[in-house]
Amino acid sequence: MNAFIKNQIQQFQDNNQNRGRLLVSCPDQPGIVSTISKFLFSHNANIIESSQYSTNPEGGTFFIRIEFECPNLKEKASEMENQFGDIAKEFSMEWKLTHVYNMKKVAIFVSKELHCLLELIWEWQSGNLMADISMVISNHEEAREVVEPLNIPFYYIPANKDIREQVEEKQLELLKEHNIDLIILARYMQILTPKFVSANPNKIINIHHSFLPAFIGARPYERAYGRGVKLIGATSHYVTNDLDEGPIIEQDISRVDHRDNVDSLKKIGRSVERSVLARAVKWHLEDRILVHENKTIVF
Amino acid sequence: MNAFIKNQIQQFQDNNQNRGRLLVSCPDQPGIVSTISKFLFSHNANIIESSQYSTNPEGGTFFIRIEFECPNLKEKASEMENQFGDIAKEFSMEWKLTHVYNMKKVAIFVSKELHCLLELIWEWQSGNLMADISMVISNHEEAREVVEPLNIPFYYIPANKDIREQVEEKQLELLKEHNIDLIILARYMQILTPKFVSANPNKIINIHHSFLPAFIGARPYERAYGRGVKLIGATSHYVTNDLDEGPIIEQDISRVDHRDNVDSLKKIGRSVERSVLARAVKWHLEDRILVHENKTIVF
Amino acid sequence: MNAFIKNQIQQFQDNNQNRGRLLVSCPDQPGIVSTISKFLFSHNANIIESSQYSTNPEGGTFFIRIEFECPNLKEKASEMENQFGDIAKEFSMEWKLTHVYNMKKVAIFVSKELHCLLELIWEWQSGNLMADISMVISNHEEAREVVEPLNIPFYYIPANKDIREQVEEKQLELLKEHNIDLIILARYMQILTPKFVSANPNKIINIHHSFLPAFIGARPYERAYGRGVKLIGATSHYVTNDLDEGPIIEQDISRVDHRDNVDSLKKIGRSVERSVLARAVKWHLEDRILVHENKTIVF
Amino acid sequence: MNAFIKNQIQQFQDNNQNRGRLLVSCPDQPGIVSTISKFLFSHNANIIESSQYSTNPEGGTFFIRIEFECPNLKEKASEMENQFGDIAKEFSMEWKLTHVYNMKKVAIFVSKELHCLLELIWEWQSGNLMADISMVISNHEEAREVVEPLNIPFYYIPANKDIREQVEEKQLELLKEHNIDLIILARYMQILTPKFVSANPNKIINIHHSFLPAFIGARPYERAYGRGVKLIGATSHYVTNDLDEGPIIEQDISRVDHRDNVDSLKKIGRSVERSVLARAVKWHLEDRILVHENKTIVF
Repeated sequence: MNAFIKNQIQQFQDNNQNRGRLLVSCPDQPGIVSTISKFLFSHNANIIESSQYSTNPEGGTFFIRIEFECPNLKEKASEMENQFGDIAKEFSMEWKLTHVYNMKKVAIFVSKELHCLLELIWEWQSGNLMADISMVISNHEEAREVVEPLNIPFYYIPANKDIREQVEEKQLELLKEHNIDLIILARYMQILTPKFVSANPNKIINIHHSFLPAFIGARPYERAYGRGVKLIGATSHYVTNDLDEGPIIEQDISRVDHRDNVDSLKKIGRSVERSVLARAVKWHLEDRILVHENKTIVF
Repeated sequence: MNAFIKNQIQQFQDNNQNRGRLLVSCPDQPGIVSTISKFLFSHNANIIESSQYSTNPEGGTFFIRIEFECPNLKEKASEMENQFGDIAKEFSMEWKLTHVYNMKKVAIFVSKELHCLLELIWEWQSGNLMADISMVISNHEEAREVVEPLNIPFYYIPANKDIREQVEEKQLELLKEHNIDLIILARYMQILTPKFVSANPNKIINIHHSFLPAFIGARPYERAYGRGVKLIGATSHYVTNDLDEGPIIEQDISRVDHRDNVDSLKKIGRSVERSVLARAVKWHLEDRILVHENKTIVF
Repeated sequence: MNAFIKNQIQQFQDNNQNRGRLLVSCPDQPGIVSTISKFLFSHNANIIESSQYSTNPEGGTFFIRIEFECPNLKEKASEMENQFGDIAKEFSMEWKLTHVYNMKKVAIFVSKELHCLLELIWEWQSGNLMADISMVISNHEEAREVVEPLNIPFYYIPANKDIREQVEEKQLELLKEHNIDLIILARYMQILTPKFVSANPNKIINIHHSFLPAFIGARPYERAYGRGVKLIGATSHYVTNDLDEGPIIEQDISRVDHRDNVDSLKKIGRSVERSVLARAVKWHLEDRILVHENKTIVF
Repeated sequence: MNAFIKNQIQQFQDNNQNRGRLLVSCPDQPGIVSTISKFLFSHNANIIESSQYSTNPEGGTFFIRIEFECPNLKEKASEMENQFGDIAKEFSMEWKLTHVYNMKKVAIFVSKELHCLLELIWEWQSGNLMADISMVISNHEEAREVVEPLNIPFYYIPANKDIREQVEEKQLELLKEHNIDLIILARYMQILTPKFVSANPNKIINIHHSFLPAFIGARPYERAYGRGVKLIGATSHYVTNDLDEGPIIEQDISRVDHRDNVDSLKKIGRSVERSVLARAVKWHLEDRILVHENKTIVF
């Protein structure tokens, strides 16, 4: 890692020694916010940012994300987790308490086209995507010269549909070995097996190069050209075992016109893909995304 | 027609007594532009705006739209048409010469939801959509009180799928009687028969309340909600006999999020529908659209 | 008021009999959220939506907006107000408790150009701007025929800078008589006196036809044209006694190019003005805006 | 230069051996288009793209840009230039005939912040900005490690206001030596002297980090924060001797809100700066920009 990034990370961790995030989803009922805020107050935690949503105040599901500043969080984290466990049981909560200081470990999967990888690295270097980029895995060699000068480990694992299972075995081993929290498919053009996907629920973010659900599947730009659309889009979503049907995190579009052929659609599309993927990853790293019935709540 | 609109139209026609538009499509070959501009120059026509496009300079199709100012256009129009006929034959052109002074006659079809009709009327009153709105046809009574105070004839023709053919017969009669140039389906919720559509090729503009080809068919907002999209859209297109598959003229989108239910998607969507339809109609009225193989060229 | 709108309002009030909103700003310190949510819980109020912001968690100002559902709110409102007064004292809060059922009373000031008025009325009829439009005041007669058919009282009060004080006296009287909560300057082209402005702090919303602080003052489209900008904008803000310097609520832009002259800038600009003003008014009516040191927090 | 870029350039030049562009501005009068297209036809040039604009068809200024394909352009270019000179004289034209094969020579000036430089290089590597990047000049060392691995000459020339003239002398020498066609100020934070600017009319493109004419001069993000704007912008323009007053080429904005402090405004702004500058440079390289009375016409 070069000095510049090292410095960024140092600064980030210094600033976030006492910064925590609490994510909760549970059946809606009166008293949730009151109970949670009382809990945080009892630990001298100061709420910095809080967002909530209920699918239906009467009998729906309630979601909340709280970012807080708590003195000596490092020392108190496990005690807080224990205590909150009791509250969680009472309200039937699914929940997560994260310590921002501990950056998420990320693996980026990439193929030949590097624009999404480059954007992620660029935003990482700029301090917008604070993560521990633990590795880049590719079935091609193109990314090596981008990644290695930054001291990010690069694994070249050739892949095709005939050797899919062996390839994924190697990959899963690497992911496990490094305790990877998030897998980013930055235009990795291989299909994943149900086994691989099931092993990483809501932990794989993909960028699809169309405005889903338009142009599910292969060659979306060619098909967009054929249909004569006036806007092209990109969609970032969590990967499930239904192709391009996982929970959508972010989408955006760009205007095109009759002069654009498939090649220029691809060029224009790359900019959209870049920014849509970067935003989705940023939100995931900041624990802003909750998944509910194949949809995302983005706080 | 109230005094305000009368005045707008008067002014428009005064300003466009000598304004013409030439639209041409033909196999590409050298010399087209040179020949056309020589022709216009020989009639003392001054080119005001000119746009062109070729699908492929070698052996493709060439398209051009020229807006020009020509002294005494009214008197010379038919002579010019005759002369240009010879050029057209030589280059195998499809072409059209329009005199802007002669406003297009428009029929608006509408159902219960009036937002698209209201936008069209609003833009018409503002002088942005210069047309002769000859009639509004509806299978409901809601639009009457909007339309009649403006002295636009309103025809209430109840419709449903059992009486579709009789209904369309009446409609076609009215359209013929008034020499209608353009039919706008401003959220008219009835399906048209192939007979009706074939009688009006590239003359029916529809607004579909989704970002086509996503959510073709009925209830797009409900399905957009179900899929958890982060953007909703609207698409304006010429009607063909393949449902929602006609040449796209214009599309746009609006951002939504997890808090939006079907109702709020509809409300947000209405704004997009309004502006997308108004733009498409404007371009059609200004002779800016050429149709080529199920796509539009919008100059 | 016509039947359609009457029905909208009826429905809105039925839906919001128990809906309340609490807005608070105070010096930041731990325990605020906990205290407020405990208070609401003690009244069986269920939090529907909650947003908060702090200028600086250590020693800054804290803002919160809570929308809640509370059984029998009508009967309990004054008791809740009394009780909350004690909390407010303890934390040095500025605060407001509103009952959504009681729609805000609005006066719209307008001049000759009606596009902003028409947009407001359109959104009001659509159920997007729930308010009691108590009157429209104008120094011209143009708006009368739009307003009176809807049974909105229309006051024609000729104005110019020589009679400014008498005019405003009449206006203030009308405002007082009808307990007006919000004044919307929907392209009202008269300057207001400091006396009028001071009588209505953060209660006057203006739409300025430029992207402030560019083109402060008169004739912004002419000056935008002169400068050759590639985007034009509109700004909605609360009126203070510094011309066009009040707290900005919302801004938006539209793309233009070298072909646009002053007239087409104005036409394009009208669409932006319309939607920017409508959004700002909507947020005000929904108690989403807090003013802090010449800036707005929009929740 | 690495193999990838070498290959891109080779391909670009192969594709553009016979591609030319003609840019003309002159007093408007009938017959211009006819004469030009006859001229091109007589050289067997096939018009690929053509755009025109007139400030006023009666007595205004006329502008046209034609991109064409002409067999053996390399050999015929000087003959065509000679012939067109006669036409130009007749119509009092200012004009330029460029051969796309000959890429423009570009110098990029940069300071410590590298995001704009990185975007330009990224787009250059992607084949979107075809130019000969002849040098990068900086008053800091930060850019060296980005630039030198790509075999772009890097010149470190320390600068401050006391030694401005000596510094510019060195710079002008370098520019002259390499026949530089375009200077890009990619966040170069030094003010240029009138002498330097006059030596390079309409050849210096700057990126200003605000939506001009708002926040002319220094520290625009700080001032945008102070004013509480809801959108921040960036402006790319040709440099003249009036600070931030040169002809605007492109502008864009991004939405911000009350939660954004100066630091986050800067981060958000960087994305806008990047894309606005890249677009302006692309248009310049493609000879799409004509300057007229402190405004740009962008075809």
